[in-house]
Amino acid sequence: MIVILKQGTTQKEIDNITDAIEKKGVKVNPVIGKELIILGLVGDTSKIDHTQIEANRNVEKVMHVAEPFKKANRMFHPEPSIIDVNGNKIGGNKIAMIAGPCSVESEEQITSIAEDVKKSGANFLRGGAFKPRTSPYAFQGLKYEGLELLKKAKEKTGLPIVTEIMSPYDIDKFVEDVDVIQVGARNMQNFDLLKELGKTNKTILLKRGLSATIEEWLMSAEYIMAGGNENIVLCERGIRTFETYTRNTLDLSAVPAIKKLSHLPIIIDPSHATGKWWMVDPLAKAAIAIGADGLIIEVHNDPANALCDGQQSIKPSVYNNLVTELRLIAKAIGREI
Amino acid sequence: MIVILKQGTTQKEIDNITDAIEKKGVKVNPVIGKELIILGLVGDTSKIDHTQIEANRNVEKVMHVAEPFKKANRMFHPEPSIIDVNGNKIGGNKIAMIAGPCSVESEEQITSIAEDVKKSGANFLRGGAFKPRTSPYAFQGLKYEGLELLKKAKEKTGLPIVTEIMSPYDIDKFVEDVDVIQVGARNMQNFDLLKELGKTNKTILLKRGLSATIEEWLMSAEYIMAGGNENIVLCERGIRTFETYTRNTLDLSAVPAIKKLSHLPIIIDPSHATGKWWMVDPLAKAAIAIGADGLIIEVHNDPANALCDGQQSIKPSVYNNLVTELRLIAKAIGREI
Amino acid sequence: MIVILKQGTTQKEIDNITDAIEKKGVKVNPVIGKELIILGLVGDTSKIDHTQIEANRNVEKVMHVAEPFKKANRMFHPEPSIIDVNGNKIGGNKIAMIAGPCSVESEEQITSIAEDVKKSGANFLRGGAFKPRTSPYAFQGLKYEGLELLKKAKEKTGLPIVTEIMSPYDIDKFVEDVDVIQVGARNMQNFDLLKELGKTNKTILLKRGLSATIEEWLMSAEYIMAGGNENIVLCERGIRTFETYTRNTLDLSAVPAIKKLSHLPIIIDPSHATGKWWMVDPLAKAAIAIGADGLIIEVHNDPANALCDGQQSIKPSVYNNLVTELRLIAKAIGREI
Amino acid sequence: MIVILKQGTTQKEIDNITDAIEKKGVKVNPVIGKELIILGLVGDTSKIDHTQIEANRNVEKVMHVAEPFKKANRMFHPEPSIIDVNGNKIGGNKIAMIAGPCSVESEEQITSIAEDVKKSGANFLRGGAFKPRTSPYAFQGLKYEGLELLKKAKEKTGLPIVTEIMSPYDIDKFVEDVDVIQVGARNMQNFDLLKELGKTNKTILLKRGLSATIEEWLMSAEYIMAGGNENIVLCERGIRTFETYTRNTLDLSAVPAIKKLSHLPIIIDPSHATGKWWMVDPLAKAAIAIGADGLIIEVHNDPANALCDGQQSIKPSVYNNLVTELRLIAKAIGREI
Repeated sequence: MIVILKQGTTQKEIDNITDAIEKKGVKVNPVIGKELIILGLVGDTSKIDHTQIEANRNVEKVMHVAEPFKKANRMFHPEPSIIDVNGNKIGGNKIAMIAGPCSVESEEQITSIAEDVKKSGANFLRGGAFKPRTSPYAFQGLKYEGLELLKKAKEKTGLPIVTEIMSPYDIDKFVEDVDVIQVGARNMQNFDLLKELGKTNKTILLKRGLSATIEEWLMSAEYIMAGGNENIVLCERGIRTFETYTRNTLDLSAVPAIKKLSHLPIIIDPSHATGKWWMVDPLAKAAIAIGADGLIIEVHNDPANALCDGQQSIKPSVYNNLVTELRLIAKAIGREI
Repeated sequence: MIVILKQGTTQKEIDNITDAIEKKGVKVNPVIGKELIILGLVGDTSKIDHTQIEANRNVEKVMHVAEPFKKANRMFHPEPSIIDVNGNKIGGNKIAMIAGPCSVESEEQITSIAEDVKKSGANFLRGGAFKPRTSPYAFQGLKYEGLELLKKAKEKTGLPIVTEIMSPYDIDKFVEDVDVIQVGARNMQNFDLLKELGKTNKTILLKRGLSATIEEWLMSAEYIMAGGNENIVLCERGIRTFETYTRNTLDLSAVPAIKKLSHLPIIIDPSHATGKWWMVDPLAKAAIAIGADGLIIEVHNDPANALCDGQQSIKPSVYNNLVTELRLIAKAIGREI
Repeated sequence: MIVILKQGTTQKEIDNITDAIEKKGVKVNPVIGKELIILGLVGDTSKIDHTQIEANRNVEKVMHVAEPFKKANRMFHPEPSIIDVNGNKIGGNKIAMIAGPCSVESEEQITSIAEDVKKSGANFLRGGAFKPRTSPYAFQGLKYEGLELLKKAKEKTGLPIVTEIMSPYDIDKFVEDVDVIQVGARNMQNFDLLKELGKTNKTILLKRGLSATIEEWLMSAEYIMAGGNENIVLCERGIRTFETYTRNTLDLSAVPAIKKLSHLPIIIDPSHATGKWWMVDPLAKAAIAIGADGLIIEVHNDPANALCDGQQSIKPSVYNNLVTELRLIAKAIGREI
Repeated sequence: MIVILKQGTTQKEIDNITDAIEKKGVKVNPVIGKELIILGLVGDTSKIDHTQIEANRNVEKVMHVAEPFKKANRMFHPEPSIIDVNGNKIGGNKIAMIAGPCSVESEEQITSIAEDVKKSGANFLRGGAFKPRTSPYAFQGLKYEGLELLKKAKEKTGLPIVTEIMSPYDIDKFVEDVDVIQVGARNMQNFDLLKELGKTNKTILLKRGLSATIEEWLMSAEYIMAGGNENIVLCERGIRTFETYTRNTLDLSAVPAIKKLSHLPIIIDPSHATGKWWMVDPLAKAAIAIGADGLIIEVHNDPANALCDGQQSIKPSVYNNLVTELRLIAKAIGREI
């Protein structure tokens, strides 16, 4: 951490600030120039709240050097984490393939899609039971009934369940019924929910918020990890920019960035990223090529009549062809599906 | 709502889509040109989920014409809403002045600030008890103890309490202890929390999410209103853009936009918008001039030692001068503080 | 300037980097911690290209401390600059009022608008002769004929002319015919044009680019100033964000930011900022309240038939009322129109 | 094009607007509902300036249906364009590989890099002679001397030259000396320059502006094409978002979007997109997988001492390995390098 002081700060004030900072348990090295007074903080600064230093009126600004996250930081955990979900691994050489409908609609629907995507090579089943919708008047999911239907599809296919949680009230139920608990983009900084999930040992699929920086995203992972749960899979699903042709802008450079900064696995959601089914194919290919550890893709047997997000869902047959082509790209970069 | 079909869509397909849409209870008027087939939907489209139409592969895109919010919509409620909080009105000619520290730190701190800002003209006291912090290692607020201290400050000054809720678990407690329940920017689309708040009749201060469009923000208000609680005050607090000199970019044009689209009152938070205490003064003046119904400002008796956000807090004496100057601007536009 | 080195950089490599940097004429002070090696650069760093330092593979990152602009920097020119245009001052206590149509259409149109806005209190006439349009098929302005008509309007009213330049070929003509040469948002980083304008001594109205940071904007001013022309007026006209309700998002906090960082005057364009005529009034009021040195507003006698941007133009009578109200706000903050 | 009228617009006003629009050569089909009055415009709307319609105070908004570009539009040119540069094709099955330093520094430097990248498989040489720099104090390129050195490198290697133009004054020289004229991101809407380039028949590499929408980018291509020059290659190089870890956010979804909307080839610049040399490899792989028609990559023999952008340049040996790996991915999607 580096503290820049205002020009004209007196030696006495520098000493006061230095004392105040050193009380927080770090050492201060000053660099004093004519147009520049900086204090270099040496030691563990991860628990120092920079706003407490910036509040001093002699402080021009405070700059991070070390990343503010610890448990998620690759510096202290150089090996990539491999998350084990009932024997299915996320983060290793084999790429995780998560597929299924936007929302669970009926037993027949979810079971038939589960069977189809399994045949194509998927090893996880996604399906929304609780749906975060912008409008209170839109379909909100089958809720607990949806969870029951997911369990039936799991019974038939063996595919572990990935589904989104919206309320801390439901954590116990999700821990019992679900294999991977998804935290949606809009809840990425629902810190209360993150803390509660930190007390479980379930795998958490943490989606990046629509306008979250990579650092904030890792800090949200840190919230869960600080609570004791280190089973986290990150998921990039598009960020909000000025471009309106696509619903969001998929930030694929987040993949190498996360690999550099953290040991946690990262997967890509090409369906939500653009909101257009015909873009799923090229974006999925790019995601594999750039080194993503998995893909979560919306697949529906009848997109035109889907209860939500049919415009971004692909049919099982399209998914099947896509996986075949993805295998070639995975092989080209030395991985497998 | 307008549905654009792909070129080459056959008459039979047009008929099928038309039938499917008319089953949702609206009438379809087609406009058919050589390079253009559009369907104009006439009737109440607010409950139609556009993704269900977009999912049809012959549909190029779906465009909203009418706003998707009803209860928050000025079209159906032309008079501006005035929210009554224990006799203090938000939304009328008199401008609401909310002030207080980022977080409650001690009885002495909160009481003394409350007394100071009251003398200067504030009519609401803000103070965080539960703090949403990016880092799990940062000070998270005094929590329930903070609520108790706020109540003591209210006892002494009579100022109604404005404070942020983070968990649905705390709603009963907040309903009892608090006058205005704040929903923070990061929870603007925590739909589960919004639904629960819709069941109360407390005034809700709904902050705009960091990357929320004005429409999405009003849809979040609609969530609360759809549950039965129409006591909502909107709060613009800066949006996230590429600019890094200020922490966020205050979108003051949201004030006239909200006044046009909705009957709900809107206030401005100049402290969070920029993260710089010396910008509070000019931004507060601009907010009054543009027609905001109130200001929420961070005031601390000792910013340099504040437990959070001291860098954006002003001292009581600075607040006092500011209010004096704001009164002149309010008068210039025919309002009062 | 601060240089952060990678962990594990050897002393020998630190010495090499230090030598290389000191050859650029600054002194290097090292701060060496266990998880942190930083080099504090003391001296004139404004001419050091940070990419040349970042290119060293041991360098983690380079951070600016001092602003990279010199001539535009308030630190070296504490008094605000007042720009004199034929006796009309921009930057002093009196607020500059620039008004006129998006584009010059006919002698009658430009002259009559000029006469109207002058009566209302405008002291500069704007009017586009060369129009930067997104589409090659849209009206591109009357070009040289437009300049002639502006001169006629000036003859009749005495109002100095503000108009946009698009090509370096036209500089001589503009220097002769025009009082303030406008550089549009899309040309803010047309460095070649900026360099040529730096050789003149005309007042330059430099609009902020749609996605330009405040620092980049000041660096564009620095381009002109480095060439010898210090007569620059900055103009904020809205930046590009995710919000689509307004055409752009007016960044009013740029006003106090510029006042802090630079001595150059700054004015606001509320017409282009939102693209909506009914938002001009509230945004103009906010601009005066926040301390802008002027306003540039689109006024047209027949907006419904304007050849461009009629949707954001106000009528002369509306402008007249607006100026009357703006005078009250100006007075409230101790300035005058 | 669709025109939405305000509620309460009278039949007489509807008729007036209809007449005014039909005079522009299109037919108007009205759809009149209780809460909705829309006019569907049928015919060639590409030459209608929507602001001229929006200026009518009864108009709520105007929405595009057909894209505003004609010559760049895939609808009227279903086959993808293949641009021929001295026998080297851009846009076909073979992927164009453009490589070279950020700026030309010396004969030895440019020639040696050209020879190296040619051996690795590059078929075009890039190198900046005129450099657009944010700071007027940064190295601005060798200018005309740089062009001469590029010609020498071409003589030795046969690689066609790709280099950036900054001023319309230099067009004749570039037409003579250069094979592909690059228009940089900051000049994407320098319409004057685009018009001049439209009069040549050189291949133009048109970079996307930092905050340009895909539609605006295609409209800039349309400017050149409207002038008669249809030899255009688009280049995505990262857009500006709130994320600061990377210099820009590479928008790879622009590749399938452009392929859908236009027949023009599109290439990717992974070097400028992130500003980090170690991200070039994964982003280049993703670009090939997603279907880009080429890559423009910064290669320098001594990045640590490069005169600009060394931090994003890779060494010839790294480039050589990268091309080898890219060939595998190209093969996996049925293309070749």
